[in-house]
Amino acid sequence: MLNTLIVGASGYAGAELVSYVNRHPHMNITALTVSAQSNDAGKLISEVHPELKGVVDLPLQPMSDISAFTTGVDVVFLATAHEVSHDLAPQFLAAGCVVFDLSGAFRVNDAAFYEKFYGFTHQHPQWLEAAVYGLAEWNHDKLREAQLIAVPGCYPTAAQLALKPLIDAGVLNLNQWPVINAISGVSGAGRKAAISNSFCEVSLQPYGIFNHRHHPEITSHLGAEVIFTPHLGNFKRGILETITCRLNPGVTQAQIAALYQQAYADKPLVRLYDKGVPALKNVERLPFCDIGFVVDGEHLIVVAAEDNLLKGAAAQAVQCANIRFGFAETQSLI
Amino acid sequence: MLNTLIVGASGYAGAELVSYVNRHPHMNITALTVSAQSNDAGKLISEVHPELKGVVDLPLQPMSDISAFTTGVDVVFLATAHEVSHDLAPQFLAAGCVVFDLSGAFRVNDAAFYEKFYGFTHQHPQWLEAAVYGLAEWNHDKLREAQLIAVPGCYPTAAQLALKPLIDAGVLNLNQWPVINAISGVSGAGRKAAISNSFCEVSLQPYGIFNHRHHPEITSHLGAEVIFTPHLGNFKRGILETITCRLNPGVTQAQIAALYQQAYADKPLVRLYDKGVPALKNVERLPFCDIGFVVDGEHLIVVAAEDNLLKGAAAQAVQCANIRFGFAETQSLI
Amino acid sequence: MLNTLIVGASGYAGAELVSYVNRHPHMNITALTVSAQSNDAGKLISEVHPELKGVVDLPLQPMSDISAFTTGVDVVFLATAHEVSHDLAPQFLAAGCVVFDLSGAFRVNDAAFYEKFYGFTHQHPQWLEAAVYGLAEWNHDKLREAQLIAVPGCYPTAAQLALKPLIDAGVLNLNQWPVINAISGVSGAGRKAAISNSFCEVSLQPYGIFNHRHHPEITSHLGAEVIFTPHLGNFKRGILETITCRLNPGVTQAQIAALYQQAYADKPLVRLYDKGVPALKNVERLPFCDIGFVVDGEHLIVVAAEDNLLKGAAAQAVQCANIRFGFAETQSLI
Amino acid sequence: MLNTLIVGASGYAGAELVSYVNRHPHMNITALTVSAQSNDAGKLISEVHPELKGVVDLPLQPMSDISAFTTGVDVVFLATAHEVSHDLAPQFLAAGCVVFDLSGAFRVNDAAFYEKFYGFTHQHPQWLEAAVYGLAEWNHDKLREAQLIAVPGCYPTAAQLALKPLIDAGVLNLNQWPVINAISGVSGAGRKAAISNSFCEVSLQPYGIFNHRHHPEITSHLGAEVIFTPHLGNFKRGILETITCRLNPGVTQAQIAALYQQAYADKPLVRLYDKGVPALKNVERLPFCDIGFVVDGEHLIVVAAEDNLLKGAAAQAVQCANIRFGFAETQSLI
Repeated sequence: MLNTLIVGASGYAGAELVSYVNRHPHMNITALTVSAQSNDAGKLISEVHPELKGVVDLPLQPMSDISAFTTGVDVVFLATAHEVSHDLAPQFLAAGCVVFDLSGAFRVNDAAFYEKFYGFTHQHPQWLEAAVYGLAEWNHDKLREAQLIAVPGCYPTAAQLALKPLIDAGVLNLNQWPVINAISGVSGAGRKAAISNSFCEVSLQPYGIFNHRHHPEITSHLGAEVIFTPHLGNFKRGILETITCRLNPGVTQAQIAALYQQAYADKPLVRLYDKGVPALKNVERLPFCDIGFVVDGEHLIVVAAEDNLLKGAAAQAVQCANIRFGFAETQSLI
Repeated sequence: MLNTLIVGASGYAGAELVSYVNRHPHMNITALTVSAQSNDAGKLISEVHPELKGVVDLPLQPMSDISAFTTGVDVVFLATAHEVSHDLAPQFLAAGCVVFDLSGAFRVNDAAFYEKFYGFTHQHPQWLEAAVYGLAEWNHDKLREAQLIAVPGCYPTAAQLALKPLIDAGVLNLNQWPVINAISGVSGAGRKAAISNSFCEVSLQPYGIFNHRHHPEITSHLGAEVIFTPHLGNFKRGILETITCRLNPGVTQAQIAALYQQAYADKPLVRLYDKGVPALKNVERLPFCDIGFVVDGEHLIVVAAEDNLLKGAAAQAVQCANIRFGFAETQSLI
Repeated sequence: MLNTLIVGASGYAGAELVSYVNRHPHMNITALTVSAQSNDAGKLISEVHPELKGVVDLPLQPMSDISAFTTGVDVVFLATAHEVSHDLAPQFLAAGCVVFDLSGAFRVNDAAFYEKFYGFTHQHPQWLEAAVYGLAEWNHDKLREAQLIAVPGCYPTAAQLALKPLIDAGVLNLNQWPVINAISGVSGAGRKAAISNSFCEVSLQPYGIFNHRHHPEITSHLGAEVIFTPHLGNFKRGILETITCRLNPGVTQAQIAALYQQAYADKPLVRLYDKGVPALKNVERLPFCDIGFVVDGEHLIVVAAEDNLLKGAAAQAVQCANIRFGFAETQSLI
Repeated sequence: MLNTLIVGASGYAGAELVSYVNRHPHMNITALTVSAQSNDAGKLISEVHPELKGVVDLPLQPMSDISAFTTGVDVVFLATAHEVSHDLAPQFLAAGCVVFDLSGAFRVNDAAFYEKFYGFTHQHPQWLEAAVYGLAEWNHDKLREAQLIAVPGCYPTAAQLALKPLIDAGVLNLNQWPVINAISGVSGAGRKAAISNSFCEVSLQPYGIFNHRHHPEITSHLGAEVIFTPHLGNFKRGILETITCRLNPGVTQAQIAALYQQAYADKPLVRLYDKGVPALKNVERLPFCDIGFVVDGEHLIVVAAEDNLLKGAAAQAVQCANIRFGFAETQSLI
């Protein structure tokens, strides 16, 4: 039984983590915490997320420093802002915990990246170096040994699962950068008061054109350039990515299908489509990333869909924990 | 040509006023203002409400005191918070303007009401006395003479249009209070950043049970008690009210129909249903209040629907102005 | 291990049953069937409900007569139309199966009811007599012995859970009929092509005023009259009921609270609110019925919320099966 | 005063035409018709589209042959299926009417196109030849003389308005085909009963990948290849297109801006963004196409948004009529 602390439990991904860990037969919640400044401090998680009423009624404890929360703790999930994770993760690691960080603080092993895209100077290059990127289908063996797991961003998860088998196999003509059009539910912006998130203002639109911080996360791990255009959609959760690629001459539909089969046939959380492409509802509130594609001559369109809060956050974090500790990969996820 | 000032133009009702006044052949926008503290001060209205781009591109001017905005102004629309209207209206009235106030500041001629439901002490009893309640279908003659028009609240408009003909005629058994279940779109909460308004949090639910400030507005003008239960709905705009009443013995469907006909047959912004009841979409973005009803023995269910921002706010304000100045009642509304 | 047949598996409640039974440790799906005329016959359930892909990929077998589907079957769930259930249930019962019928075919022990509200003559009065009404919190002991369980309708489940403790205790003044305003998601209308269900036509509106077939189901089981006004809401799933009641003189908030506690404190699928009332999202995709209330003098407003497809259909059916066969009441539901 | 017939008035674009023509000072509705087989035949338009109640209450007359509907008619709008327009347009043209066809029947002057994409053999090559493509901003002078106007498809309108100035100027590197990701509201599928349109089934997803019939409409009129991927969105109306292009070396943001200015500065229904890109809500229920763009090195992303039923159908049809008959281009549209 792993004693498990969830930091930042009041957010949307945090609440999903609470739900997963609560029903995990080998994990035990030791505490749920929020920032000491949070309005939610002192409330029950089920007051903030009433769907958890009667299921998990633990308090959201204010955490100023970590000392009160480390005793006997084996596992820490950080569902916190990038800067907060950056500061907290090393402390929990020093206390001997295995840390699953859902923020961007340890995803890219390049200190300059943090200056440019996150606006802070990274202080922990040794942890950047040691962190394992938790794209679970690809980093299974490294995850088995990791102490710090940087769970990928929501957009990058779907983008990489869709593109990595093709790029690694060299079937794409990368002179024409893959065009990733991605649409995310509003929960991706986090649980906060903001005009831009308010019900009457939300409307389908692109944002962060040519400068979203998930762009370099995608390209650095893929080792290839892409054009990434995120959109806000008028729905609560889910991400759909429509990815347009140029194939190298002679590459066939059958070859693409074979590459996906090879990569994911034995991966329980990636579902491949024999024909057609996924709709967003296929993955809503489910831990899967669904992938379908269509080839037309040298043109390929891949469609990947996932729930941004699950395979794009909490489910992938728990999947990584399952791998790390030798449980069934889908334990408590399906 | 009436020179027209719109105060609080950046909100949802404000933007609708801008749109109506802009296309009114006998009105002319002199300025649009917002609070000097507003983040929107200095922006164009079409930056805040991009649907107005190319239609109305006027600036939202910060207004600290009214002096810079009264010269030559005939008409003022106040789409402001209750306290703000309370303070501003007398100043504009003193400057000789005709004021249409969309807030609750002058709707109920009872100073105690403001202490209790709005949390401030009313300082202008003479204007409370002089204000004409702008329920346009019922106060036509008084509106012709008014200098201060208190445009009714969104919920009270539909509730009163539905109930007033029946209560005035004495066909209801008022020992059993009419039960008004009302559902409003999120725009009714105003344009502001709040967790409760945020896209992922909005969900159908009752609020303000037994204590919403529109309850006494309804009862004081109807002269009868009701049970009023507002709900937040998961849509942007519109109000649907389902009103359950007990009829006096012997009252028939035909009598009810006749009472509505008598009240509204010549009222262009109330649409009566011969059979069936309205759906919300029937009135979305339209200036109408639609009314249908069903009788079963001594039981009556009336359904009234309106757009909360239009017949429940901006359209009724302009309708009042049209009446006040002798224009066609629906000028620029249909 | 109970061999379990799901008839009508392609509908929305059917798919939820498939999901629940699939993860039930003591149940085993023997087959999924649909009408032989259905367009879905022969498809995989996961083609019709892609969220089940990789989870349950069984075929939807056309069923003309039941003989091919009864061998070794212990349990049958009928997620079929009323007339279909009426015809099939006795056949499965004769074959020795325990039948959980989600239709209205055996809910009210009054043959005239079927003529009037369902438009057919009931041919099986002995089964009407023998059927146990599956309002699980109230009929626990009868369910233990039942061979035919008539799972309640979606609206009646929430209405009865909210009102039964109060009516049984005699605290309501029933001269003033409780007013039930209920709003349901579109899935309540079933999975079918119809203009009225189409995305652009759906809009909040009442329907079936004074004549919905769930009205007599509610009143016959409560033993009291009510006014029941269902509404279609612009959301996929969930029901919220706002119920306005008159209390007998002297009845207090504390008494009401005590009655609910007494009824449901040990009932895991009813969640009581100490303060406030539920929002629809609190119960979406969850097996609970949530109940909150507010008292003001002699007026009481109770708000009950549930997922129409779960506590209002599939989850309650499985809850009944859990009780019937002695499993934990919430097995595979939470 | 132009006598105007609207054929196919019961659909979504038809109802918008009714609304526009009804308030047009120089047009007069002679009749509204639907197919003789339609369930809507004989109903009032305001029964089918209740938002028109009290505004336009004309009957939807069944039309078997056109003879009863041509007397004195100057203008015909065909809001009908492709095959129906194909058959009817020549008859109305022979009767001397000016015909605005909102279907695809006369949009591409290539008979083979109809075999391949619409599944019928075109019988009227002379009208294919004579038809003027109603992309209003580009074909002004031809429209002045046209007798048959083929109003463009919804997707092609936005795509061409966005790309045509750039392609005509030769600033795009067309070796890399522009990638058009387009998302449309459900009303684009028409007013009909279908599982795929039903409220619970609609979910964001691509469709018609590499084979949508709007693809050749776009490419034939642009004279350049593109990759066009339409998506169904979970909203009623509106289209947003995100178009990713490769620029020729050295082309600057300023040049792109200048090209758009040159093309559209004096075009009242195209709104250009100095900075940023449009959201869908900016154009909902409005007759505009909004265009914004961002340049990054040799990469260009253009975003175009319109209401699919308005600038993508009814508003553009009326805009064409305004041009054809010498009225102000925006008459009755703004």
